[in-house]
Amino acid sequence: MTENAGYGSAGVGFMDGAFMALSELRLPVTDMGFQLADMCYDAVHVWKGRFFRLDDHLERWQRSLVQRRFDTLGYDRDAVARVLHGCVARAGLTESMVTVIATRGSPATAHKDLRTCQNRLVVWAVPFSAVVSAEELETGCDIVIAETVRIPPEAVDPTVKNFGRLDFVQALFEAYDRDARYAVLLDRDGFVTEGRGWNIFALRAGELLSPDRGVLEGMTRRTVLELSAALNIKGRLGRMGADDLRGADEVFLTSTAGGIMPVRSIDGRPVGDGQPGPVTARLKDMYWRLHDDPAYTTPVRYEPAEA
Amino acid sequence: MTENAGYGSAGVGFMDGAFMALSELRLPVTDMGFQLADMCYDAVHVWKGRFFRLDDHLERWQRSLVQRRFDTLGYDRDAVARVLHGCVARAGLTESMVTVIATRGSPATAHKDLRTCQNRLVVWAVPFSAVVSAEELETGCDIVIAETVRIPPEAVDPTVKNFGRLDFVQALFEAYDRDARYAVLLDRDGFVTEGRGWNIFALRAGELLSPDRGVLEGMTRRTVLELSAALNIKGRLGRMGADDLRGADEVFLTSTAGGIMPVRSIDGRPVGDGQPGPVTARLKDMYWRLHDDPAYTTPVRYEPAEA
Repeated sequence: MTENAGYGSAGVGFMDGAFMALSELRLPVTDMGFQLADMCYDAVHVWKGRFFRLDDHLERWQRSLVQRRFDTLGYDRDAVARVLHGCVARAGLTESMVTVIATRGSPATAHKDLRTCQNRLVVWAVPFSAVVSAEELETGCDIVIAETVRIPPEAVDPTVKNFGRLDFVQALFEAYDRDARYAVLLDRDGFVTEGRGWNIFALRAGELLSPDRGVLEGMTRRTVLELSAALNIKGRLGRMGADDLRGADEVFLTSTAGGIMPVRSIDGRPVGDGQPGPVTARLKDMYWRLHDDPAYTTPVRYEPAEA
Repeated sequence: MTENAGYGSAGVGFMDGAFMALSELRLPVTDMGFQLADMCYDAVHVWKGRFFRLDDHLERWQRSLVQRRFDTLGYDRDAVARVLHGCVARAGLTESMVTVIATRGSPATAHKDLRTCQNRLVVWAVPFSAVVSAEELETGCDIVIAETVRIPPEAVDPTVKNFGRLDFVQALFEAYDRDARYAVLLDRDGFVTEGRGWNIFALRAGELLSPDRGVLEGMTRRTVLELSAALNIKGRLGRMGADDLRGADEVFLTSTAGGIMPVRSIDGRPVGDGQPGPVTARLKDMYWRLHDDPAYTTPVRYEPAEA
């Protein structure tokens, strides 16, 4: 697993009809994707030369396009998939994180009526990386439960993956100030939601629980629920209090960027015995084995298709 | 007043130490200012060749830098002011909107620890424009009270001006669907907050009221409170319900982008007699006369300073 060195120095991007080095991929500041965070995105990964759950990611992203009312993107699903293949192929990566974004685009006049914008497709592929460090993937990571409250669904729909993440930013600085590197946020009623780019699971009394509302419906979260069924472990979505986390036998984060990532402490107190637990290890192993399964994967087209 | 044609086609920007045409001003997609909306900004305007309340804007922006913990910007207040003058001068504008932004910058590694980012200064100056159209400045604009709830202060501090505005985006589409062009948002408890880029005032029984919490502490809002005191009209900040708006004699929006802008209808029902009211007109007149007052204004340095 890489230590994620040099973010942005390697990779290939696509915007306004052209492929380019990621270092040259720059968004016009007039794009409402910047000025209003008016965008939606998805992140899919490539492992051993194969996309993982590509169709599921594109389906979710396309639902986001509809919810965000991006009507003028000008790329259908097949065209978008070709751009994803093209970025990974041009970057020459067999392990990659791929980001696919739609932005509102730039308005026709300074009045900034959003209906006058031409939506924009932005894609990039970089070397695979995890939310946590290589060491933390093995030993577990330290998280805090933030005082900062998650942006509520009544204000911004969290199932439409987006970059309007100032709540996460504030929470991350809380973590840094408390000798941790990651933060999970509660909602205003005190229920657990998610962190920057990940869902969270707790194992208690043999049952896996993850929050059912106020969160992204993560693809790795879905995969874990499927795998737990195969393991005969009851996995369910529901309300989760901070005490459900603190009293758990095992806790892990899930993300396309890293898969299943054990948590070893919460607010400075160890989870279980402070070592990644057996269920976490078992799920992690099963998760990575799925990457060889043709039902879950799509080979990257590294050679240009015939015309 | 301009009809705001051709947003982004005219103007001068500054980033990474260089001035450039606004059309060339593009933010690296690796900047957390895009990926997390991890940025803060301010907007100041130039009228008849003079900045309005430049020191007050820069003071607010610098407080935002501290709150957002942007420690590595590399430009002190005088240096930032020089860039603002430089953009307006190079654009040759006597009436201009100037945006000054700090972003978190790009992280050193894909792990995206925010403490590894080099903060970035981004500035641009464009021809002056208002939130509403030239016609609406005269006749009043139509707004709706949105169902979408404003992002609460416990999640993101609204006094730190930022681009994490998906709640406004959602609310604007509610307005478009209801034959209006602007939306004001309530908080979860039903109290009025603000709209995209503006505060709101209601005049009832001779008293001016504007929300005291969950909003940007706008510079035009502050100016209106100062002017109302001079007019012997009681102006105050406090909780404002939707009925305070609906039952008002006059309603107006305030923004650096346009000043004092009358509202003629709310949810399709006229405010007062549907015409901009006398207090609004009086305040508007006083507001624009302040732009000749040296105590409120700073002449743009159109000629390069002597070395």
